[in-house]
Amino acid sequence: MKHYKGYLIDLDGTMYRGEEKIEAASRFVQKLIEKELPYLFVTNNSSRTPKQVADKLVSMGIPTTEGHVFTTSMATAQYIDETHGKANTFMIGENGLEEALINQGLKVTDKDVDVVVMGIDRNITYEKLSIACLAIRNGARFLSTNGDVAIPTERGLLPGNGSLTSVVRVSTGVEPTFIGKPESIIVDQALEVLGVPLDDTVMVGDNYQTDIMAGINANMDTLLVHTGVTSKEQLAIEKKKPTWSIDSLDDWTVL
Amino acid sequence: MKHYKGYLIDLDGTMYRGEEKIEAASRFVQKLIEKELPYLFVTNNSSRTPKQVADKLVSMGIPTTEGHVFTTSMATAQYIDETHGKANTFMIGENGLEEALINQGLKVTDKDVDVVVMGIDRNITYEKLSIACLAIRNGARFLSTNGDVAIPTERGLLPGNGSLTSVVRVSTGVEPTFIGKPESIIVDQALEVLGVPLDDTVMVGDNYQTDIMAGINANMDTLLVHTGVTSKEQLAIEKKKPTWSIDSLDDWTVL
Repeated sequence: MKHYKGYLIDLDGTMYRGEEKIEAASRFVQKLIEKELPYLFVTNNSSRTPKQVADKLVSMGIPTTEGHVFTTSMATAQYIDETHGKANTFMIGENGLEEALINQGLKVTDKDVDVVVMGIDRNITYEKLSIACLAIRNGARFLSTNGDVAIPTERGLLPGNGSLTSVVRVSTGVEPTFIGKPESIIVDQALEVLGVPLDDTVMVGDNYQTDIMAGINANMDTLLVHTGVTSKEQLAIEKKKPTWSIDSLDDWTVL
Repeated sequence: MKHYKGYLIDLDGTMYRGEEKIEAASRFVQKLIEKELPYLFVTNNSSRTPKQVADKLVSMGIPTTEGHVFTTSMATAQYIDETHGKANTFMIGENGLEEALINQGLKVTDKDVDVVVMGIDRNITYEKLSIACLAIRNGARFLSTNGDVAIPTERGLLPGNGSLTSVVRVSTGVEPTFIGKPESIIVDQALEVLGVPLDDTVMVGDNYQTDIMAGINANMDTLLVHTGVTSKEQLAIEKKKPTWSIDSLDDWTVL
């Protein structure tokens, strides 16, 4: 164990599993609060607003406010502002992405587009995809909130944003910049919001390919908890190990 | 010049350019009719029915009946019947594909799906993509009418079926079987319909990557006409040349 001054924490598989509580999660967050350690939930889910995410966590007994939630939509909006200023942004996405772009002061439009952003959109249409392709062929920057190819649901694995993004990638031949985990962009943005130096922060998650790789790509310590995607057997074959790995968040002593 | 007993002929770029007539095309087809040579128009357009295609050709002064049109939707329906019998087929596509599947006696359904087919669908929805992904993860065969990544329109290049297909390919990790040009499947099917042996038939088209490669992949003679996609300069860098290349169909003597 090491004394970390800040925690970046994944949600699904780490704080809960779909609609199922992970009991140790609530105890873990309670300990962070008792020690007055800053924490931020970092999620690749672009469709929900921070309020929707916080409401779900509270309903699962995990103490949270909107201020503890950092979505890939917020990271994307912040990234656009830093790299392109108040750009004309065409988005394919849902509420969470739209709110994040507007809150950042960006103009959401399909005219004179500087930046195209794709996030999961369950109301996707051929017309939206067409506008995105035309704008990118016309020189617009191409961003995508995350590269997840599938979303677990009770019906099975449905198309994720990474697969929707491939329509525009394949049609235009232009590779998007992905913002979410495992990219370091979302981690760098989250650290700014958390306000704790990288060396003093740990990234906590259940998914080696996204959560842990995001931490590794950002050069920070990582804590893998085997309550979700990545099993011990799967971890055994990975060359770059997380700094720490545990079976349950109950096994972690918050110093 | 060689005496061919049958002609497979591309449409856009060869018989017309979008809504623009190619004058030599009508004279060329007239000569085939005078010599009583069988010909079949072979198109990667899956959205139109043979009647719609024939109507457009007639309106451009090119003598045609429905029987002269072979679409990739017809090739796909025939391929399913040959490989899977009267399979339960889930389709993403437009009129031309639906009509072809039904005419082939296949059951178009989203239940107990044996085969998933994707063709261009300008009413594509997340739900259709979800059903396709779930069926393929459940073991259904994955076909796609064609791999064209972009469609030329007056607005610019819009997403083609190859790019829509990538959603399901990327999400499931399953590679589809493509039916249309440059695959040899559509050519083999077309030759059956034409009723002329491969060695006596020539594939005529303007696009090296699709029309000519389809002929080459099917081991048949090819005739490239520089009235559409592929310029002389582009052809010069290709290693495998078409059997013949000409500037205009007027330069071809029908023997």
